Amino acid sequence: MKILIIHGPNLNLLGKREADIYGSMTLDDINNLLNLLAKDLGVELEIKQSNHEGEIVDIIQNSKDYSALVINPAAYTHTSVAIRDAIAAVEIPTVEVHLSNIHKREEFRHNSLIAPVAYGQISGFGFDSYLLGLRAAVSIANACNGNS
Amino acid sequence: MKILIIHGPNLNLLGKREADIYGSMTLDDINNLLNLLAKDLGVELEIKQSNHEGEIVDIIQNSKDYSALVINPAAYTHTSVAIRDAIAAVEIPTVEVHLSNIHKREEFRHNSLIAPVAYGQISGFGFDSYLLGLRAAVSIANACNGNS
Amino acid sequence: MKILIIHGPNLNLLGKREADIYGSMTLDDINNLLNLLAKDLGVELEIKQSNHEGEIVDIIQNSKDYSALVINPAAYTHTSVAIRDAIAAVEIPTVEVHLSNIHKREEFRHNSLIAPVAYGQISGFGFDSYLLGLRAAVSIANACNGNS
Amino acid sequence: MKILIIHGPNLNLLGKREADIYGSMTLDDINNLLNLLAKDLGVELEIKQSNHEGEIVDIIQNSKDYSALVINPAAYTHTSVAIRDAIAAVEIPTVEVHLSNIHKREEFRHNSLIAPVAYGQISGFGFDSYLLGLRAAVSIANACNGNS
Amino acid sequence: MKILIIHGPNLNLLGKREADIYGSMTLDDINNLLNLLAKDLGVELEIKQSNHEGEIVDIIQNSKDYSALVINPAAYTHTSVAIRDAIAAVEIPTVEVHLSNIHKREEFRHNSLIAPVAYGQISGFGFDSYLLGLRAAVSIANACNGNS
Amino acid sequence: MKILIIHGPNLNLLGKREADIYGSMTLDDINNLLNLLAKDLGVELEIKQSNHEGEIVDIIQNSKDYSALVINPAAYTHTSVAIRDAIAAVEIPTVEVHLSNIHKREEFRHNSLIAPVAYGQISGFGFDSYLLGLRAAVSIANACNGNS
Amino acid sequence: MKILIIHGPNLNLLGKREADIYGSMTLDDINNLLNLLAKDLGVELEIKQSNHEGEIVDIIQNSKDYSALVINPAAYTHTSVAIRDAIAAVEIPTVEVHLSNIHKREEFRHNSLIAPVAYGQISGFGFDSYLLGLRAAVSIANACNGNS
Amino acid sequence: MKILIIHGPNLNLLGKREADIYGSMTLDDINNLLNLLAKDLGVELEIKQSNHEGEIVDIIQNSKDYSALVINPAAYTHTSVAIRDAIAAVEIPTVEVHLSNIHKREEFRHNSLIAPVAYGQISGFGFDSYLLGLRAAVSIANACNGNS
Amino acid sequence: MKILIIHGPNLNLLGKREADIYGSMTLDDINNLLNLLAKDLGVELEIKQSNHEGEIVDIIQNSKDYSALVINPAAYTHTSVAIRDAIAAVEIPTVEVHLSNIHKREEFRHNSLIAPVAYGQISGFGFDSYLLGLRAAVSIANACNGNS
Amino acid sequence: MKILIIHGPNLNLLGKREADIYGSMTLDDINNLLNLLAKDLGVELEIKQSNHEGEIVDIIQNSKDYSALVINPAAYTHTSVAIRDAIAAVEIPTVEVHLSNIHKREEFRHNSLIAPVAYGQISGFGFDSYLLGLRAAVSIANACNGNS
Amino acid sequence: MKILIIHGPNLNLLGKREADIYGSMTLDDINNLLNLLAKDLGVELEIKQSNHEGEIVDIIQNSKDYSALVINPAAYTHTSVAIRDAIAAVEIPTVEVHLSNIHKREEFRHNSLIAPVAYGQISGFGFDSYLLGLRAAVSIANACNGNS
Amino acid sequence: MKILIIHGPNLNLLGKREADIYGSMTLDDINNLLNLLAKDLGVELEIKQSNHEGEIVDIIQNSKDYSALVINPAAYTHTSVAIRDAIAAVEIPTVEVHLSNIHKREEFRHNSLIAPVAYGQISGFGFDSYLLGLRAAVSIANACNGNS
Repeated sequence: MKILIIHGPNLNLLGKREADIYGSMTLDDINNLLNLLAKDLGVELEIKQSNHEGEIVDIIQNSKDYSALVINPAAYTHTSVAIRDAIAAVEIPTVEVHLSNIHKREEFRHNSLIAPVAYGQISGFGFDSYLLGLRAAVSIANACNGNS
Repeated sequence: MKILIIHGPNLNLLGKREADIYGSMTLDDINNLLNLLAKDLGVELEIKQSNHEGEIVDIIQNSKDYSALVINPAAYTHTSVAIRDAIAAVEIPTVEVHLSNIHKREEFRHNSLIAPVAYGQISGFGFDSYLLGLRAAVSIANACNGNS
Repeated sequence: MKILIIHGPNLNLLGKREADIYGSMTLDDINNLLNLLAKDLGVELEIKQSNHEGEIVDIIQNSKDYSALVINPAAYTHTSVAIRDAIAAVEIPTVEVHLSNIHKREEFRHNSLIAPVAYGQISGFGFDSYLLGLRAAVSIANACNGNS
Repeated sequence: MKILIIHGPNLNLLGKREADIYGSMTLDDINNLLNLLAKDLGVELEIKQSNHEGEIVDIIQNSKDYSALVINPAAYTHTSVAIRDAIAAVEIPTVEVHLSNIHKREEFRHNSLIAPVAYGQISGFGFDSYLLGLRAAVSIANACNGNS
Repeated sequence: MKILIIHGPNLNLLGKREADIYGSMTLDDINNLLNLLAKDLGVELEIKQSNHEGEIVDIIQNSKDYSALVINPAAYTHTSVAIRDAIAAVEIPTVEVHLSNIHKREEFRHNSLIAPVAYGQISGFGFDSYLLGLRAAVSIANACNGNS
Repeated sequence: MKILIIHGPNLNLLGKREADIYGSMTLDDINNLLNLLAKDLGVELEIKQSNHEGEIVDIIQNSKDYSALVINPAAYTHTSVAIRDAIAAVEIPTVEVHLSNIHKREEFRHNSLIAPVAYGQISGFGFDSYLLGLRAAVSIANACNGNS
Repeated sequence: MKILIIHGPNLNLLGKREADIYGSMTLDDINNLLNLLAKDLGVELEIKQSNHEGEIVDIIQNSKDYSALVINPAAYTHTSVAIRDAIAAVEIPTVEVHLSNIHKREEFRHNSLIAPVAYGQISGFGFDSYLLGLRAAVSIANACNGNS
Repeated sequence: MKILIIHGPNLNLLGKREADIYGSMTLDDINNLLNLLAKDLGVELEIKQSNHEGEIVDIIQNSKDYSALVINPAAYTHTSVAIRDAIAAVEIPTVEVHLSNIHKREEFRHNSLIAPVAYGQISGFGFDSYLLGLRAAVSIANACNGNS
Repeated sequence: MKILIIHGPNLNLLGKREADIYGSMTLDDINNLLNLLAKDLGVELEIKQSNHEGEIVDIIQNSKDYSALVINPAAYTHTSVAIRDAIAAVEIPTVEVHLSNIHKREEFRHNSLIAPVAYGQISGFGFDSYLLGLRAAVSIANACNGNS
Repeated sequence: MKILIIHGPNLNLLGKREADIYGSMTLDDINNLLNLLAKDLGVELEIKQSNHEGEIVDIIQNSKDYSALVINPAAYTHTSVAIRDAIAAVEIPTVEVHLSNIHKREEFRHNSLIAPVAYGQISGFGFDSYLLGLRAAVSIANACNGNS
Repeated sequence: MKILIIHGPNLNLLGKREADIYGSMTLDDINNLLNLLAKDLGVELEIKQSNHEGEIVDIIQNSKDYSALVINPAAYTHTSVAIRDAIAAVEIPTVEVHLSNIHKREEFRHNSLIAPVAYGQISGFGFDSYLLGLRAAVSIANACNGNS
Repeated sequence: MKILIIHGPNLNLLGKREADIYGSMTLDDINNLLNLLAKDLGVELEIKQSNHEGEIVDIIQNSKDYSALVINPAAYTHTSVAIRDAIAAVEIPTVEVHLSNIHKREEFRHNSLIAPVAYGQISGFGFDSYLLGLRAAVSIANACNGNS
């Protein structure tokens, strides 16, 4: 079973800027934790990051070999109909994760264009959002396989 | 470490009605799974269900011995300022969970009055929302203890 | 055939307060008229009143022996997602009635959270709303039986 | 006692089109049921249908010999201030009926311009909405006579 | 002259939690101050607290022996049509009080469903809101008596 | 110079119904006053009334021999884009008049679809709105002639 | 009979600036026309202009010797609750006039805070709005006298 | 194959008024072009125009012999639920056309009540909108026939 | 301790106009009651009234010798950002009072621009609003002194 | 004459995913049909697809040699001001096409940012939307040439 | 070349109150910096401050000898249509400046009634907003002269 | 001191298209003026342009060696949360500039997603917006240095 992790725009800055808000953990640190958990759960991981809306659309379109996606769409959560349409088109179960609780932030961040096409949403648990998201993805992928 | 699970209104009907929507798993089945995982994680669980807004406020007010709450506020998610205020008052980290992805349902279910006072939110993974929620709660409680 | 009548909050005050608005007929008077009509139509009635949202949810959950519900949700019409979810869950045909024409009153009373899960709505005919509602309930229940 | 029944636009197509939605009963079938019930209740009926807003205004203006109106304004429910003003002007008690539960349909059908000038509203009971509406009209007309 | 004081949901936690926001004064402390002032003004007090919407409706319905009510509806200020209807029904002059200035808080706390049926509103003066509210209630009750 | 007066829907009922609101003056009475003033001002009048939106569109389309229109669109003020488009198409200066001050009435009567294509609007002066409207129309027509 | 004319802010610039929009007629020119018509109608005029909201409130408060007011509130039409309250307080019939058709201009000029307390509104006829307004004022004042 | 073309209100004025906006082509000119194209495509045309909402409803109801409709609802696009319901009822594929690009005009013209029941919409190409609409209608009708 | 009372626009008319609404008590009467209570409480009063927004801003700016302000901003409550900014700038605790319950009046009076910068708000108790406001002001001023 | 066709994001997936919704025709199939029609109409085609908003802006900026554009902006229809500005800047007549009727889909897809700068819009006819769009583009280009 | 600087309400308090927010620089300090820069740029300055909306209207009306205005409308930015109309009337190029970035403050401060009639807007640079505004004003005035 | 200038989408077309709106000055011309002023102010400039949202995010992320940014986000002003988040993340003071006064243009251009994270905003002065923006940037950078 292969799972694809997608990090959206500005997440490559994690741990380098605004450490007081987002903590000192870098994206590499999070990726290491994800790889450890993946090993534990016996699944293979592919991890990508992009600041470009169109590139993320391309990545999703080329994900047909994966059993599930875990995506943190970051800023594109609130503006990208293109990413939404890509997720809907590929029909691979997708888990939406957010480091911070988006419902506690500015009004314009409360609404997610991705949520209606995602399987489920996890937000607010910091790097744990990714780890819980990976568990959820594996669980969904297993259930899907069990059905076929 | 003791964790309190609160099931909101109409969740006692799970598995007995609308099985086509919510599946054939009953609330007892979910509670059994929660207890198994709790054992696994080495934490103690207390589980309560109520259809009464005031009773849920009372339960939350009396939760001072717990390290974290996991609550599925169900219908009260969208209408109860009283439950919100109770969670804010007791200052125990709270994980909000939903069986279904509330962002895919009717417009009036998109907004959560509870989310801004919760630590994080998990929605859309069926009974897995509870299990992921319990993991998140334990993780937060550990982090909090680590700080003291 | 058994029909359940549910009176929502403050309806126990009927005829005792604000007689200039709601008339001098008490809830007992309305219940007597309902029982007379029920006899006439050959159906059995159970009648309950509560000021508590949670109690009304409990009553609806325990109505599985009834062929239909007639409910005047009163103030909870506009605020209770929990009662709405309970009606949706039990899947018993439900007639929503209102003494006054809610569309003539304050803006916030125009919208009913109950209407989308009710079979139909009757509002504005005073105690006649209940009698018409009982007739409608019997008619629906007969149609449902005819289908099985 | 004479009661006027007014069928609004497109109701002449009942039972001929969209039978899967509106059933196989034609407008003539409904009118026959209304006439039977009228006989039963000892009242005289006049029944009219029009697709033209202006014609319905004319019909209402010329209804001064009737004790009550039962109107299904259909599509004009949501757009006709002229029919509303005509009902308000003639000051004959008016019962608004709808075959389907308008609160379950598209957003723009939730609001009725007619409701604030009607005595009461009955919606969602199929042809029974008309029969309940006729009963309500007779009851109101009797009450009005009893007052004079 | 007898005055009824009603404390809404979560006010039983005053002084025990969130002391940095609401101060160290407990509900008992406030009640003592109210009793002292009542003695001073020569009126009798009854004081109740509940976290249950339905119970508060019951309390208001049974308040017919009181000359005036002073209520802090807390969270139910913004969500309870049932409490609003109960106040309107009993027709006893009612003073609405709030510890904090609700107009400075979250958007959803700016609107009060209770205000349109209350005699007046006092908000923002901490425990003084209650003392000013009691003075206002006595003054209104005297004026009402003077009229009869 | 010929001026066309158009009375919209339900204005034929003036003075016959709702005399407490609209006064005891009939549409004939108003027409007589208009004819007297027209004589005084040395202009010819044509006066039409219709309850039908389409008919009013036809009347406006056929008004090319008139120097100006005075229209009380009544209920169609708020709902008819067709009448608006007809006025815009014929390019004859049009005075919009209303018996009552529409800004004091229900919210949905505050907005006029006709106003943006009318030369000016006069509302609230009872039958005087028509007389002032006729004066305005003559004045505009004179000014237009003066320009050619 | 004495009538008071009030010109609101920036009207003193008429004919001096933006002549392409407002024409070359100055405020003095309009006042002369008003005085001529007043003579004709046998009434006495007082005419005032101010750019200050508070001064206009003072003027209205001191208008008790006048039978009617004609006011062009200009920019304060859309922002002054104080002028609205002053008009409501003095209870002298008030005619609201506008040179331009405010319904054709920017969205924020469509709404008049003054209209709900004015007897009627005339807008869009240039200087004729004032002359028609004066006629309307005299007519209302005569009708009021006739009633006493 | 027979196709029905329906021209809505005020379209009979095309080419006679506002030639600067709508061009000098009359409705007859457009009809001639439509007939030429119809001949070319080997289909039969029926063409109707009406300013009356009710008449257009009648025309649509009587269109059962046609394979497709091409309608320019003009002003009724934005206000007629009755025409919408008629199109939905007859279940004949319908192409909605507009001479001008309605999305470039006033805000209230951006929304079409007809669009959700039409097969597709073509707007902004002047008389070409009709010709493209006829092509689309023939194409849809052929596809529908192919399915049976 | 010196307290400043500011009466906003139109309050100079109290008791002289609209006595049926605002009662027969004049502003002088209220000021006398305020002076009596001030004496009782051992504080010094300064009382000012103005119809001019700019003057009220000047008064507030020059209030640095007062311990607290009591202001009834009347109509400026809803429109004056300048008075709001002045209160925020001088940093003297300010009590906002209203004779009538502004939450029962027109929609546009429900929102107060002043409330978010005021210490608290008292509305609906007639002249008692001022007396309660003075008590509140003294209490706040004492508390502030106690803190230093 | 050269026409440029631009396919927006995710259209490269056509016929490969969600075949039940979008049909089994691939983008290549549509391009073949477009080329056939182009040959038929005697025009030259250039066809491009991109998932990147910025790339589409680049393509449009470099389109100065084309007589007209046909663009299906897909998801960017609703979010891209940059594409809108590019179309406005190059001043080449642009036809906006959509496979599905966007007015029948989710609320957020009803509004097009592109429409106000496009010549016209065609939506809902599947691949026929492109063919009709090409015909429209050629027709506009011819008309433009005719003018020069 | 003469430039007029206008400081709106409460700006006379700069540096004296809320020094933590607005800094310790007084209005005199800013005026000195402005005068220095004016000398540098070879232009003459006139500087005025007022807390009165009407006075600011008067000042603007009397500014015909100036080549450009620089205005900080402060609180009147959001509420004064009268100042907006005055700026539009005098037709002197106007630069709008704000000390703080109004887009970062309360929601009601985001919208400027002045912006649509100003040449441009500068906000957020503290006293530098004035200096940049003066440079902009000189630049515009030069360009305007260059055009004549 | 090094300053980075970023030009957003479509600005590469300046002076080549729509010269009537944006003038005949090209982006190169503006860059030359910026370089001249930079020399004058003794600072180093780097200037970049991109039509791609993701590229602009990358540019901002890599700007850590600059003392300040001057950005004209053009179309992305209104749609890009990603650029906003990038600016917030890098914590380099940023000046937002616009050639045209965005508050005078279409409604959807009034709101800037960038403004709340920018230091200040300058809009409406044509190429001068850039020059003023550079001065502002240097001034802020100097102030920041002064603080360290």
